[in-house]
Amino acid sequence: MSGTTRQQSWKIQTELPVEYEIVETHDLLNPGNPDLLTVPGGGRGTGTRLVILDHSVDELYGAKIRTYFSENDVPVDYLTLPGSEENKSIERVLEVVNKLNEVGTNRLSSPPIVIGGGVVADVVGLAASLYRRGIPFVRVPTTLLGQVDVSVAAKSGINYGGYRNRLGAYTPPPRTLIDRSFLATVPRRQLRNGMGEIFKMALIKDLRLFELLEEYGAELIEARFQDPGPGEGPAAAVADEVIGRAIAGMAEELQPNLWEKDLQRSVDYGHSFSPLVEMRALPELLHGEAVAMDCVFSALLAAGRGLIDDDQFTRIVAVARRMGLAPSHPLFCDVELVLEGLADTVLHRDGKQNLPILTAIGEVCFLNDVSEDEIERACAGMGRLLGTGAGRAGQRVGADR
Amino acid sequence: MSGTTRQQSWKIQTELPVEYEIVETHDLLNPGNPDLLTVPGGGRGTGTRLVILDHSVDELYGAKIRTYFSENDVPVDYLTLPGSEENKSIERVLEVVNKLNEVGTNRLSSPPIVIGGGVVADVVGLAASLYRRGIPFVRVPTTLLGQVDVSVAAKSGINYGGYRNRLGAYTPPPRTLIDRSFLATVPRRQLRNGMGEIFKMALIKDLRLFELLEEYGAELIEARFQDPGPGEGPAAAVADEVIGRAIAGMAEELQPNLWEKDLQRSVDYGHSFSPLVEMRALPELLHGEAVAMDCVFSALLAAGRGLIDDDQFTRIVAVARRMGLAPSHPLFCDVELVLEGLADTVLHRDGKQNLPILTAIGEVCFLNDVSEDEIERACAGMGRLLGTGAGRAGQRVGADR
Repeated sequence: MSGTTRQQSWKIQTELPVEYEIVETHDLLNPGNPDLLTVPGGGRGTGTRLVILDHSVDELYGAKIRTYFSENDVPVDYLTLPGSEENKSIERVLEVVNKLNEVGTNRLSSPPIVIGGGVVADVVGLAASLYRRGIPFVRVPTTLLGQVDVSVAAKSGINYGGYRNRLGAYTPPPRTLIDRSFLATVPRRQLRNGMGEIFKMALIKDLRLFELLEEYGAELIEARFQDPGPGEGPAAAVADEVIGRAIAGMAEELQPNLWEKDLQRSVDYGHSFSPLVEMRALPELLHGEAVAMDCVFSALLAAGRGLIDDDQFTRIVAVARRMGLAPSHPLFCDVELVLEGLADTVLHRDGKQNLPILTAIGEVCFLNDVSEDEIERACAGMGRLLGTGAGRAGQRVGADR
Repeated sequence: MSGTTRQQSWKIQTELPVEYEIVETHDLLNPGNPDLLTVPGGGRGTGTRLVILDHSVDELYGAKIRTYFSENDVPVDYLTLPGSEENKSIERVLEVVNKLNEVGTNRLSSPPIVIGGGVVADVVGLAASLYRRGIPFVRVPTTLLGQVDVSVAAKSGINYGGYRNRLGAYTPPPRTLIDRSFLATVPRRQLRNGMGEIFKMALIKDLRLFELLEEYGAELIEARFQDPGPGEGPAAAVADEVIGRAIAGMAEELQPNLWEKDLQRSVDYGHSFSPLVEMRALPELLHGEAVAMDCVFSALLAAGRGLIDDDQFTRIVAVARRMGLAPSHPLFCDVELVLEGLADTVLHRDGKQNLPILTAIGEVCFLNDVSEDEIERACAGMGRLLGTGAGRAGQRVGADR
């Protein structure tokens, strides 16, 4: 004690250990497979489990899911939610909370299970993060984008007040289960949507993955990542390797920077110019489609600086096209729009461009001095890609399911 | 690759470093004091700051606060919220979010400032935790309970669906500012409310703090923790030491267990039987008043087992009474109600009693085998404390401001 003039202060310094896993499983809805029942930490838990489905999962797998839990004698209650983007809302989060109250979900031992696409994963993720200041949950992504991208993420988010992901949290589920047999019922355009993110991952850090896409990408989409008959399509091992390398790459990038304290993120490749284009093009472009175009646009910037050569650039465009991902779009030729998109991104990256740019297929650097002239030349390059090739790919997009 | 039968899995393991400080300041609203302007991490930040006040702070200090920011030429927008418990609601959280959108609060450099009691601290804390998946904020508690208890906490919470703190998060503000001059305008009953938590902290770990309460507690309340005139009341150094020891004790207990992974928490002392009594007695009892009664009830359990002697027990009751905190209440004599409260607590502590019980003034152990007989005897003891002494203290509670 030294009287009133001294200012006291106290500091709390600690660390929150965070650990979560993404586990591949086969035949998840077979009543003999215990994966859905196991509670993070082990055992089958206690009390009623809340199972949240999106409408299309309920339609396609609802009966099988109900059989699974009844054959296993696990008390379950169900909530089915719509899976479209406008349902990433606070109202849906509170709907989940109401249901958790009704079911009587406790603090640890009856984690809810969410089976569906990215929207319900986000809604349930945020509800679980808030409920009793955070309860565990189990995540089962059923789309390719969900399996290779959302599956690894720690974050959840909902749209609010006209802003995308304005409210959210960084609270990963202890366990995410990946069963690629769900992909058998996913429309092909949605598979290409997921391929957009795999394509990005290949470009920034994984030449081997790029080569797999080059050789097998189109066939994997054709076979919906399912095991082929004898002599048909790529081996199951290829589907496993493509999904596995995409997840592993994402996990490697996120682990040291889970809370995004470092705003130089190579996984932001393909996400520098596309967010605004995607919003402006709505509902024409899916997320992964816009991401693939941004990958090409950013490759044009790299080629313009001589960081990659023409052969590498051509190869990149060819792989996108082969997978039915259009490399370009008229909005990417609009210099003003692209510059506006970059300005938004700079705000989000706390005042810097921090642009991930290829130095090879499988390698990035970060640039902070990309000029308007360079953007203009890249936009012109996107114009040239709008020709026959892009048209061909463009026609495929959305044409078949 | 070893084919389809192998199950792949990926694990993410990392740690979130968490650091925050509680800083004592004097004359916070003097325009020459920069503490309110400094952004966590240093500097004065950019953009408009949102300042959230509760109604009583706005009434008492609104003009001074507005002068402070205008004299410092800092662009500010204000939001005033009611400070009563029913406003710990999702609607109020979204009201703060709407205002953050309107002001244009960015990710890091314009942290909102909340000045007020525990309710607005909780509401703003949760809003900041959700906004852009978490933005920093500055917390200025203006009540004694807020300064010694809420100030140290990492958690925020709102009531939902009839449940207390059903939704919330563990996201502490980087900086909390403590200025005890705010206590000059706090009603004395509210000061006693805060004393309930200080009393708890003294009992579980700080004999010196207990002795300070014994000697100066009543006078500190009388003087509202303000600096005395010559020859009057306890020295300012005593007020600083009491508040300082309470904060330091809380910080020491929370730091190794910030996310409550360990459910044996000595700071739960006084919070084992009181939550249900507090809710049933509403609006008669304030939180700290119910906590003080639970401290006495738990001391009866300790005395019943011979863990503390009669002299220690008598001394504990005497200090509570001297500070105007009634040691007992008819609801604490109701065996059935107390047992129901304990059952709730056992659920919250994941199936165990984990009861912190005194082994001396300033020391606790944890019991898991407290029997109904022991509870019954303690209830009878609370009945004997309802006599003249309790009545005298009871009359003071709420009588003066």
